[in-house]
Amino acid sequence: MAFDYDFELILKVRDYECDMQGVVNNSVYMNYLEHARHEFLQSVGLDFKELLKQNIVAVVARAELSYKNPLQSGDEFVVRLKAEYSAMKYIFYQDIYRLPDNKLCMKTVITVVTLVNGKLAPASEIVNVIERLRELKNEM
Amino acid sequence: MAFDYDFELILKVRDYECDMQGVVNNSVYMNYLEHARHEFLQSVGLDFKELLKQNIVAVVARAELSYKNPLQSGDEFVVRLKAEYSAMKYIFYQDIYRLPDNKLCMKTVITVVTLVNGKLAPASEIVNVIERLRELKNEM
Amino acid sequence: MAFDYDFELILKVRDYECDMQGVVNNSVYMNYLEHARHEFLQSVGLDFKELLKQNIVAVVARAELSYKNPLQSGDEFVVRLKAEYSAMKYIFYQDIYRLPDNKLCMKTVITVVTLVNGKLAPASEIVNVIERLRELKNEM
Amino acid sequence: MAFDYDFELILKVRDYECDMQGVVNNSVYMNYLEHARHEFLQSVGLDFKELLKQNIVAVVARAELSYKNPLQSGDEFVVRLKAEYSAMKYIFYQDIYRLPDNKLCMKTVITVVTLVNGKLAPASEIVNVIERLRELKNEM
Repeated sequence: MAFDYDFELILKVRDYECDMQGVVNNSVYMNYLEHARHEFLQSVGLDFKELLKQNIVAVVARAELSYKNPLQSGDEFVVRLKAEYSAMKYIFYQDIYRLPDNKLCMKTVITVVTLVNGKLAPASEIVNVIERLRELKNEM
Repeated sequence: MAFDYDFELILKVRDYECDMQGVVNNSVYMNYLEHARHEFLQSVGLDFKELLKQNIVAVVARAELSYKNPLQSGDEFVVRLKAEYSAMKYIFYQDIYRLPDNKLCMKTVITVVTLVNGKLAPASEIVNVIERLRELKNEM
Repeated sequence: MAFDYDFELILKVRDYECDMQGVVNNSVYMNYLEHARHEFLQSVGLDFKELLKQNIVAVVARAELSYKNPLQSGDEFVVRLKAEYSAMKYIFYQDIYRLPDNKLCMKTVITVVTLVNGKLAPASEIVNVIERLRELKNEM
Repeated sequence: MAFDYDFELILKVRDYECDMQGVVNNSVYMNYLEHARHEFLQSVGLDFKELLKQNIVAVVARAELSYKNPLQSGDEFVVRLKAEYSAMKYIFYQDIYRLPDNKLCMKTVITVVTLVNGKLAPASEIVNVIERLRELKNEM
């Protein structure tokens, strides 16, 4: 890995995700990215649905997606993720690599903000997790 | 029309709905059918989201789908709907025809039930609408 | 298992598959079912995309879906499948159970036909696989 | 309009497009944007599927999406589009406004490239259309 990721999720293309061009439709990558973020949250003990119930709503504010190589029917791939927090923004660097050859398929930067009880505010549950991750990596 | 429908909704295939075979993916028809039922409800003054807020949850209990002819990129089509109510079940006969040639693409019977405050029960708002429709048609 | 299935695929609900009601949207089950059929084909050495290239197009002709219990965010589940072939029709009995409690979520019968070079005809590749499966089970 | 758009497409949110948060899921906007681009092509006499048959494959290379305000169940909205061409890249400025209040929901820049017979190359059919549009606007 060129990059020091915090989390990764291995998935496989499903045929219904492919479009007329015979490759995964552009919109489906957003599904992969969202699913990987929610699985990352779960891996650190946070649940998107439970956060919703506590009126903590995580919202994508900005997405920058660079499509490098298309995924196709039958492909296995990995979504790798690194999280940062700064000034009310959670930044997720999420890159997709095809397996087993590790060919880069997509590079993205997803900026998320949280609404706590309807107001833009940091959710300490998420901030703490990300800051601890960053500290742990710096110590190493 | 071979049948005396209560409602119809004209739509157009979107390219992202087509799969590797170059036709609308089987699952997407369920989207068309759901959207047509919700638009039917709106046409008679009922809103799915508002019903949810009143703890009236409409749930599909059974779907019988006969795929006759596939829709393709660029096709316009109409979803036609007839509603009946009997013994706690709302029965929606929903058929899809391609336009402008009216070729039959799909015949379906969708059985819906309602949960009112979490319990299986008829939702009088919906029952009344359907029974009035049936009366009006019988009078004609 | 109440039934003697030929194949099973374990999956997990992804949050983007859930709708306003907070449960997996009805159309998404069709995705699960299709994916399980394609994975079943792969498990017996057949590839949906390769079949397409050989002008063997598998098409759903009929789907009967009984929704028993909704899947929710975070649920793991298994799609179990039994295949039969008779008179130009491939019948897939596909049932979905929530894990780990094995609660039945959905019972379905999916009827598939094949177009070989554009004409309705049996695809011997698929027929042979299913008939061998049935023989093997009968021997036991 | 703050901007001089080339094309617009009016759509309505469908309930199956909304997720657990009760708003349109982030990935669905990519569907809206793709559909608007394909409808724009059709409005100038080009068909995505026909282009594919001629081995002209339009591919999204980059997407920059700024989510401003979420669309909800029942909302009508318009996708507005302005196209530019420069150095092998088709740039689509695509913005989404809720109707009837014209509230800005999303600002995007979508960069598309074309593969002609498998090689990165301009597709003169598309380039000509965009350059004529730009000339026409400049004359005014």
